[in-house]
Amino acid sequence: MKIWEKDSSASAAVDRFTIGRDPEFDALLAPWDVLGSIAHARMLQEIGLLEKEEWQALDAGLKAIYAEIQAGTFSIAPGVEDVHSQVEFLLTERLGDVGKKLHSGRSRNDQVLVDLKLFYRQAIADVVQEMEALFDLLQALAARHAGDLMPGYTHTQLAMPSSFGLWFSSFAEGLSEDLDLLHAAYRLVDKNPLGSAAGYGSSFPLNRARTTELLGFRQMHYNVLNAQNSRGKTERQLAFALSGVAATLNRLAADAILFMNQHFGFIRFPDALTTGSSIMPHKKNPDVFELIRAKTNQLQGLPGQIQLLLTNLTTGYHRDLQLLKEGIFPAIETLKDCLRMSRYMLEHIEIKADILQDPFYKHVFSVEAVNKLVIEGLPFRDAYKQVGRAIENDAFTVDQSRVDHVHAGSIGNLCLEEISADFRAGLQRFDFEPAKRALSALLT
Amino acid sequence: MKIWEKDSSASAAVDRFTIGRDPEFDALLAPWDVLGSIAHARMLQEIGLLEKEEWQALDAGLKAIYAEIQAGTFSIAPGVEDVHSQVEFLLTERLGDVGKKLHSGRSRNDQVLVDLKLFYRQAIADVVQEMEALFDLLQALAARHAGDLMPGYTHTQLAMPSSFGLWFSSFAEGLSEDLDLLHAAYRLVDKNPLGSAAGYGSSFPLNRARTTELLGFRQMHYNVLNAQNSRGKTERQLAFALSGVAATLNRLAADAILFMNQHFGFIRFPDALTTGSSIMPHKKNPDVFELIRAKTNQLQGLPGQIQLLLTNLTTGYHRDLQLLKEGIFPAIETLKDCLRMSRYMLEHIEIKADILQDPFYKHVFSVEAVNKLVIEGLPFRDAYKQVGRAIENDAFTVDQSRVDHVHAGSIGNLCLEEISADFRAGLQRFDFEPAKRALSALLT
Amino acid sequence: MKIWEKDSSASAAVDRFTIGRDPEFDALLAPWDVLGSIAHARMLQEIGLLEKEEWQALDAGLKAIYAEIQAGTFSIAPGVEDVHSQVEFLLTERLGDVGKKLHSGRSRNDQVLVDLKLFYRQAIADVVQEMEALFDLLQALAARHAGDLMPGYTHTQLAMPSSFGLWFSSFAEGLSEDLDLLHAAYRLVDKNPLGSAAGYGSSFPLNRARTTELLGFRQMHYNVLNAQNSRGKTERQLAFALSGVAATLNRLAADAILFMNQHFGFIRFPDALTTGSSIMPHKKNPDVFELIRAKTNQLQGLPGQIQLLLTNLTTGYHRDLQLLKEGIFPAIETLKDCLRMSRYMLEHIEIKADILQDPFYKHVFSVEAVNKLVIEGLPFRDAYKQVGRAIENDAFTVDQSRVDHVHAGSIGNLCLEEISADFRAGLQRFDFEPAKRALSALLT
Amino acid sequence: MKIWEKDSSASAAVDRFTIGRDPEFDALLAPWDVLGSIAHARMLQEIGLLEKEEWQALDAGLKAIYAEIQAGTFSIAPGVEDVHSQVEFLLTERLGDVGKKLHSGRSRNDQVLVDLKLFYRQAIADVVQEMEALFDLLQALAARHAGDLMPGYTHTQLAMPSSFGLWFSSFAEGLSEDLDLLHAAYRLVDKNPLGSAAGYGSSFPLNRARTTELLGFRQMHYNVLNAQNSRGKTERQLAFALSGVAATLNRLAADAILFMNQHFGFIRFPDALTTGSSIMPHKKNPDVFELIRAKTNQLQGLPGQIQLLLTNLTTGYHRDLQLLKEGIFPAIETLKDCLRMSRYMLEHIEIKADILQDPFYKHVFSVEAVNKLVIEGLPFRDAYKQVGRAIENDAFTVDQSRVDHVHAGSIGNLCLEEISADFRAGLQRFDFEPAKRALSALLT
Repeated sequence: MKIWEKDSSASAAVDRFTIGRDPEFDALLAPWDVLGSIAHARMLQEIGLLEKEEWQALDAGLKAIYAEIQAGTFSIAPGVEDVHSQVEFLLTERLGDVGKKLHSGRSRNDQVLVDLKLFYRQAIADVVQEMEALFDLLQALAARHAGDLMPGYTHTQLAMPSSFGLWFSSFAEGLSEDLDLLHAAYRLVDKNPLGSAAGYGSSFPLNRARTTELLGFRQMHYNVLNAQNSRGKTERQLAFALSGVAATLNRLAADAILFMNQHFGFIRFPDALTTGSSIMPHKKNPDVFELIRAKTNQLQGLPGQIQLLLTNLTTGYHRDLQLLKEGIFPAIETLKDCLRMSRYMLEHIEIKADILQDPFYKHVFSVEAVNKLVIEGLPFRDAYKQVGRAIENDAFTVDQSRVDHVHAGSIGNLCLEEISADFRAGLQRFDFEPAKRALSALLT
Repeated sequence: MKIWEKDSSASAAVDRFTIGRDPEFDALLAPWDVLGSIAHARMLQEIGLLEKEEWQALDAGLKAIYAEIQAGTFSIAPGVEDVHSQVEFLLTERLGDVGKKLHSGRSRNDQVLVDLKLFYRQAIADVVQEMEALFDLLQALAARHAGDLMPGYTHTQLAMPSSFGLWFSSFAEGLSEDLDLLHAAYRLVDKNPLGSAAGYGSSFPLNRARTTELLGFRQMHYNVLNAQNSRGKTERQLAFALSGVAATLNRLAADAILFMNQHFGFIRFPDALTTGSSIMPHKKNPDVFELIRAKTNQLQGLPGQIQLLLTNLTTGYHRDLQLLKEGIFPAIETLKDCLRMSRYMLEHIEIKADILQDPFYKHVFSVEAVNKLVIEGLPFRDAYKQVGRAIENDAFTVDQSRVDHVHAGSIGNLCLEEISADFRAGLQRFDFEPAKRALSALLT
Repeated sequence: MKIWEKDSSASAAVDRFTIGRDPEFDALLAPWDVLGSIAHARMLQEIGLLEKEEWQALDAGLKAIYAEIQAGTFSIAPGVEDVHSQVEFLLTERLGDVGKKLHSGRSRNDQVLVDLKLFYRQAIADVVQEMEALFDLLQALAARHAGDLMPGYTHTQLAMPSSFGLWFSSFAEGLSEDLDLLHAAYRLVDKNPLGSAAGYGSSFPLNRARTTELLGFRQMHYNVLNAQNSRGKTERQLAFALSGVAATLNRLAADAILFMNQHFGFIRFPDALTTGSSIMPHKKNPDVFELIRAKTNQLQGLPGQIQLLLTNLTTGYHRDLQLLKEGIFPAIETLKDCLRMSRYMLEHIEIKADILQDPFYKHVFSVEAVNKLVIEGLPFRDAYKQVGRAIENDAFTVDQSRVDHVHAGSIGNLCLEEISADFRAGLQRFDFEPAKRALSALLT
Repeated sequence: MKIWEKDSSASAAVDRFTIGRDPEFDALLAPWDVLGSIAHARMLQEIGLLEKEEWQALDAGLKAIYAEIQAGTFSIAPGVEDVHSQVEFLLTERLGDVGKKLHSGRSRNDQVLVDLKLFYRQAIADVVQEMEALFDLLQALAARHAGDLMPGYTHTQLAMPSSFGLWFSSFAEGLSEDLDLLHAAYRLVDKNPLGSAAGYGSSFPLNRARTTELLGFRQMHYNVLNAQNSRGKTERQLAFALSGVAATLNRLAADAILFMNQHFGFIRFPDALTTGSSIMPHKKNPDVFELIRAKTNQLQGLPGQIQLLLTNLTTGYHRDLQLLKEGIFPAIETLKDCLRMSRYMLEHIEIKADILQDPFYKHVFSVEAVNKLVIEGLPFRDAYKQVGRAIENDAFTVDQSRVDHVHAGSIGNLCLEEISADFRAGLQRFDFEPAKRALSALLT
């Protein structure tokens, strides 16, 4: 019945199962781990737990490792469990026992926590940057196509006149609103957990305000248990934010796929960006948008994954939390890819001109016709009857080349400037600079 | 093969299926629907689409209905599809044809949207108020029990000394952080969709800035398609926020259930708040916390429900959106209930004193003992060996009555004031007052 | 700080929170609760725990209550916690102390479990019956429209010839396959938990085989802990099954909405079954299918809800389980509604004839043309080139009125009989009869 | 604004995005792809679409590639999109134009479908085998520890006597029941989609019954659209099944973690299988069980992920389906790992003897005491009062060394043989042999 015979293989089986995909993800944490250690070491020296010479050695040693990471010459050696062990191993190998002193007043728990916070802080900055690029493109397209009409649908039925300008800028304003969830995630990410140790603090007189300042965090998680409990909570909040942006892109992709369908034919893309067949010339498969639709669904599933992992667990560290990385790390890359590919496709979009001038779309203008009569003074009831009768008698005619919408946010008044101002204000709320400056200072 | 024989029953079957639970939820929207109409009517008069006398009649009629709603004498008549129809029906019955003029430049779509926004705005204010009450209680309990030690666990294993003060205030800071998601939801809720009509705007010269001001919205959704697309998106973002608070309460409940278990016995509640049995005197069933745990799981499932409803849908209204109310409306009540019941239970909590003085917990202090020797000057390695040897020889003794944790956020320095200041700052960000003032003004 | 001042209101608050929506759902359990009790009483008498006279009194009393339930005169009195209490209360009121003897060797836990199992057993039979009616209609439609061609899409792009016969019967075979998950759920539902008491069995010499036989269960959950753990597991497995059927209907609804869009216009329904507008004669809103799409998404979200409720919980009863009913009970009704409304709509479907004869669809036949040449002896490569060249020179002509697909499952050979035979075989696997017979016998 | 400047990099960006992780997963499909092709080729020859010599060349060529795959010398060359292309490339390179003839009457869509079906068929057999090994161990442990009492909990409160025998075998019967969902998945997996081409069949006279027989499938998906729609549906159904088994292991892990907690201390494992600390000798961190708990939560999240990917999509292939592999492929390995590690841990479990003899557990026997008096003839009410009074006066004594539970499935009568018989019957329903024989025959 035994599946492993010897102790050594026993441990090996346990090791393989428990380490899992950690090394793969830990490689991404390496620079942030070193930065966290540089700040911790400086604080330890300031409160007297490290001699000045010890600190100087550690500081230099850590900066050397940081340089190696940047140069691509750092790696986690086979058999070494994680990035923290690898860094510690290198330090001890190079500096002797002082390498181990770095661990005073710190536990693996708050060390990982601070690594993750720093990593997510950068990730959010990267996502926001991609959002900005897509936003700018959408706004430019909206301006360019402000006058290009297209039909609008409700219930997937032809309903009212719309325009490409309206369509493009609806996603721009959508992205602008999506910044709020990202900002909520950022506020949670931008809190220092260092000093919480294993979740119960330390009997060393740590100066947590100092590491908060050194690492450029907005503030600390005060309560050390709450700091520990932010593991998982941070990922969930970030997953909500990624999922929110994903939902916006999902709708864009769903629209694009429908509008590329031959019955619609509203938009098209160069052959290099679609797949087709020489004997089926009609066919332009929207693979990129289908995969954006699918990947944004994967992203939307992430919060549920994280909730299942965390729910019903009691306060304090559980090994379960290790698996959070498997979900959230790839999700960040996936969202950036989807933002980038959405932009790439839209850079090459070609729209069909004068769609609504086809008689097929005549009835889309019936509400316009009624309203026009009302504005001209006819009571609504009479206007409605008049248009209804004309339609019934097949005598309804209308100018299908233009609509006169003038109010804020409508076809004729897209408020692009206001939407852009809002987006810029949204960006301002992040204020990534102090964090960057602090980390820069730490390395010099 | 026919299941319905006649046309009339055909329509009846369709009606029953399509109306569903709408009347039940629409009753909650009634006051907000009237407020939205009051603002819309005033704007229509200002842009010349209503005569002054018409507006005065409508304004008075709507205020009368509002008073009836407040007095509990309003109801949706059987056979009337929804609250909007009921209000329109009453107006027309009482005022004649002018009642129908209210619908100029407005579609059922943006009418529902604005009702929902106003409803959610109030709902968030209510949730925040419940959070504040629970926060205050947690902080008071933390202050009262700052010196009461308890064990801390990692991996569900006894690990380090903790305290009731730390435990209570970890949830307080958690709630404080949860305000961020609620605030992100609030920012989306607090945007005016009125004037977006069926999602494609109107050829009437609506003054959307004016209704935005009248209804006290922070600003409008500019793009009318984006306004329409905010249906569902708003609910998703709110669901994320409710789910975030729920996760905090879920952990509190999971802890409480474990700590009430007889092997732990750290906390207890009056008999009236638990269930038990006269022949099983040990048994104090934590039903309230079990149901909080379960209900917070229902809440955490809500985002996933909403995502399934919305995903892969194209731009524009779909009838699918009607079902959003079935999820989010009860969820708001459930979260308020859970916040209130958590508070109610904690108001009656009794904690076990001097838990850690039991020799059973001796080894929980071993890290403290090592650190103490280090602070006294012993190298860590030697300190560790000395304590390890003592434990091995069963000669380890330690003062189990106190721990000397002094750094920020630790047992001896809970930073309750800082946490409270943060929470107050979080509350400030909402600024519910302008909205309240605007609605008040509208009714006078 | 107190929100409830007195003990009595304290209990009231707790009661309101803990009872929740139980009475609403318990009403549905009433007949099954009585049936379970009839079987339990008979067994108790057989093992000597009830005197014959006691049993006769209880048996008669229970049957009287059953008759009242059937007659609609039974209800749970205000202030009575649940259906079990109401039945016990009536028995004791009418029969005296013997009413309480019914509870020997039984706990509230296994009593609820057996009620739920009996309720779900009937629910599955009802769902299967609705599936059968829809299946039969789909097959009849497939037969009727076997020769009606329509385009087939891949990537939402026009691709190949398809047919209404193929489309209708694809859902028929889909439903047939969905029986498997329902059958898996049925196997778990059809196991007797009675005798497991609170999950740890009883020191009374219960005859569990006898109640299994009396209630017509396929077999018992042997292990009493496993019987208790089937609470939640049963609901999850049933939710998987409902969700599987829902996914099939979701696709049908998504197709119908697209095919009703004016650009496609492949299918239509009488005005009474759609909504529209006299001034927008094109518009036939597919509200019923939109709501089927939405409701089947609610159903698909149910497994996730249940998993969140259950996960990470330890063995044994938790009060959390009470909330399972809130999800699964309405879901059963929702699925039956969706099956019924799908059938109702399809009973009235009208299809567009000769769609593919429009030159718009010419290229859909290009693969057919190539294959035809191949069958006539031309090497594939040459056939492909020849057709490609014809298309390029706009010289491609093809008979757009028919396709020659002859293999199993293709347009010309739908295998409707084989699919029907499969469905009947699937129905056979359920064998609802023994259960019905057993319950009938119990009541006579 | 351009992010890619040249066409070539344009294609490269699209390629990178669309290919994604396909090569990684496709490697696993290689042997099944070749088997599907061997069957397809033989059928093509039989219906006259391949000359006998052509078929012989293809058959030999495919078998050579199969041998290379088995030998580990096959790989997907850089730049080759997927496994199907790689096989086709090798065949054409080695055999010339005949290599391309293999694609007659087949599309990439049904080729992938049949690969996946064959792959999942084997995966289910593997999972079932792991389940059997764990089942046998649980039953052996139940038999060994049938007499070892432990407390049973309800509401996480001490409630009644239980036993290790009961506990172990509850999971055994749970696994036995979990076979039903796997069997439902297997029935869907074990259907032949080959011949459905792109989802609309073929104008070639394919013999689908023949490939069904050659590949050992139970039957075919008749309707070709339904065959195509089984993509995604198959994965969802399989995900339900994996998720069901995962839920059983999740509970086992949750229990083990609690029982390893020092307050309980009911079970322990060798040091090599836990992690700890020399200065915290109490601490035995249950990392393996925590990771099983977490991984089984990942598995339980999979159905939701798949549902999001599929829902609201219309009939026919969508590129979205490609991402299914990313979820389901690793899930299969994860479940096998969790089954294996559960078994590994349980092989080394040590249980605490005579737990219930500690006076701490005295009241756990109070219901037993009451029942005993009842069996001895005392009316229940009097028995209850007598025991209640004894407890109140602290005069309650009871034999804490044994319980007399005799009914089926109780502590004294675990029905292990019946449970084993059920499990074997469950295994029988799969009947993996015909499939194995068919594939064997195909290779000889």
